[in-house]
Amino acid sequence: MKAQVGNPQLLRAMNERLLLDHLREHGPASRGDLAAASGLSKPTVSAALAGLESAGLVHLVGSRGGKPGPSTAIYDMNARAGLVAGVDIGRKWIRLAIADLRGEFVGRRDVRNTARSGAELVRRVRRLAVEVAGEAGVEWQSVRYAVIGSPGVLNPATGRLDMAPNLPGWGKAGLVEQLRTALQVESAIENDINLAAVGELTSGAGRGVRNFVLVSVGTGVGMGIVINGSLYVGGRGAAGEVSFLPSGDLEVPRLDARQRGMTEAATAASGLVQAARDAGLPFGSAQEVFAAAAGGDERAQAIVAAEGRRIGALITAVTAILDPDLVVLGGGVGRNLDVLADPIARRIAELGPLRPTIVASELGDGGVLHGAVARALDVARDQLFERRSQGA
Amino acid sequence: MKAQVGNPQLLRAMNERLLLDHLREHGPASRGDLAAASGLSKPTVSAALAGLESAGLVHLVGSRGGKPGPSTAIYDMNARAGLVAGVDIGRKWIRLAIADLRGEFVGRRDVRNTARSGAELVRRVRRLAVEVAGEAGVEWQSVRYAVIGSPGVLNPATGRLDMAPNLPGWGKAGLVEQLRTALQVESAIENDINLAAVGELTSGAGRGVRNFVLVSVGTGVGMGIVINGSLYVGGRGAAGEVSFLPSGDLEVPRLDARQRGMTEAATAASGLVQAARDAGLPFGSAQEVFAAAAGGDERAQAIVAAEGRRIGALITAVTAILDPDLVVLGGGVGRNLDVLADPIARRIAELGPLRPTIVASELGDGGVLHGAVARALDVARDQLFERRSQGA
Repeated sequence: MKAQVGNPQLLRAMNERLLLDHLREHGPASRGDLAAASGLSKPTVSAALAGLESAGLVHLVGSRGGKPGPSTAIYDMNARAGLVAGVDIGRKWIRLAIADLRGEFVGRRDVRNTARSGAELVRRVRRLAVEVAGEAGVEWQSVRYAVIGSPGVLNPATGRLDMAPNLPGWGKAGLVEQLRTALQVESAIENDINLAAVGELTSGAGRGVRNFVLVSVGTGVGMGIVINGSLYVGGRGAAGEVSFLPSGDLEVPRLDARQRGMTEAATAASGLVQAARDAGLPFGSAQEVFAAAAGGDERAQAIVAAEGRRIGALITAVTAILDPDLVVLGGGVGRNLDVLADPIARRIAELGPLRPTIVASELGDGGVLHGAVARALDVARDQLFERRSQGA
Repeated sequence: MKAQVGNPQLLRAMNERLLLDHLREHGPASRGDLAAASGLSKPTVSAALAGLESAGLVHLVGSRGGKPGPSTAIYDMNARAGLVAGVDIGRKWIRLAIADLRGEFVGRRDVRNTARSGAELVRRVRRLAVEVAGEAGVEWQSVRYAVIGSPGVLNPATGRLDMAPNLPGWGKAGLVEQLRTALQVESAIENDINLAAVGELTSGAGRGVRNFVLVSVGTGVGMGIVINGSLYVGGRGAAGEVSFLPSGDLEVPRLDARQRGMTEAATAASGLVQAARDAGLPFGSAQEVFAAAAGGDERAQAIVAAEGRRIGALITAVTAILDPDLVVLGGGVGRNLDVLADPIARRIAELGPLRPTIVASELGDGGVLHGAVARALDVARDQLFERRSQGA
């Protein structure tokens, strides 16, 4: 038990942060606007703005009513005072974006992931980083913080990514460290689906929603959980690993279903393609199955309906446990909510009285990238501000 | 955006609350002890103590070293400045406790629930309340706040308890209001399993655990979820309604399984007894099945092992979604962890790589009651303190 005792430096830092956050969220404002919005006195606002300006975090962007002078000067956050990056490493695509302090992308590229080993993937990401920076006209090394989204769960004890069976060589010891070293900027690695949930929270279907989940069905099956407006990752960072939900189809699952997870083995894109093949439909991808179903192929439609039923059972399990305000469905398979919605709803009704609200992801392919940038911004803003407070 | 501006009254109230919470958690202390622990000056501590004393919330309990005077006087929270009550309404038992502000029970009684209608149950609870108060030598009406635990989820729109199929007449309109009126003290009704989780959090197996679940298997199947040290109830208060987890045994569940929930229909005590009967064992209760298994009856042992497998699948689903630090198992069936642990662990291993930590409930039958008292204390302490702050 320690009482918090106010002190002038702390108070000044708090005031500066308050004004900076206001400018970031609401855009340009005058000294008077800021005083009214914050409840601080105008002299206090002036002092805080001067501090922020000298640190390069705020700059003058104009004046109101054409009259010069401090009372009509318009200030804004200097969004270019720092850059961050987000990286999305998926089995099929690698995506990388560089963003300013407001989260606006200044550069982004999505390339096919053709790497056949972990080392090759590391080199590819590094090259991509430098290329995107070059296109944006900035130095990659000027990026303050990067967040990398990847399948799997980083095991802090071993430094390895556990539960990432879909990326070849990705679970190898030392690989995460190699990647972070190759990038040459401060970085963190986080589960891709968790980042996609953060993306929906900050700029997608989850904006303003207190409790929601992002269920992603694509190459793999995963879920990101937002509780009380924050990402929930569980005791060991493995919350939302719904690939391991018992699906009940088999008394004792086969070894591959045990390793990948029963729900993932049946429900992910490869399971859908396998189900199509078992039905005599030799499609090469989930996309082709959905296209055939849309084109009126009744056998493909039956395969899609069965997939919807599996997703419906998954969402029922999630709802029975979490009772979220919203289920956001995404991923290469899940994005086809237009055709999946009916079988999903029918299966949920068969299974009991729960009636979750389900919507499609708003960010689609870009969800992980948006989430990675949002997390990187949190860190970069704190760092910039800490440096500023310590300098004060 | 509003800056928080300190003011003397607020500061004084905060100081008083700080000292009161310290006395409640750590017991008797001198002015010097409190100053050292809080970082407040001795005069500030003295002023706050005087305020608390005049409000009857703190009293002098002795002096240190035998010397009289303010510096060696020992203060303590006046635990009798208010009383609260907890009520647990289950299908088989009704339990009621009255506790002081420290949470110590001053009276408790557990009686069989023989009521056959909602109205009869209301009368029974009311009589029990007065009886327990009488035994404790207090007036029931002096209870400041009561929290009632019940199966089901209170629907705030209708005022009815939804999803409470195990209590006859309990879902009827107006019943919750009747009960609260009959009790004649301020009260709230909460889901019993959620309260049991709060009980484990404040005084059971979940003490100091950040993220855990209480899985209860008995008359019904339910789960209470603690996330970041607080109860999580979900968007509509239905989080943890694991009775509705798809269990996968049936393609389309029968109507009764759909209404009660597939997992509850198979896994609750009645499902266990039914499974025993189907195997030619005419036991009347889950307890009898467990007793026969303990006595060496191999068919009963097989029934218990199958129950363990069902609970193992349930815990796997919960772990895949929530990755809790701890799973606390309770309820009339779940309390038999000694014999269930092996089949539970085997089933979890069959289903994948997840390895949750499972322990038995520490509070057993008293979990809901402890949780109800803990929640009532939260409200009563805030009320007492608010009254105090407004009077200051």
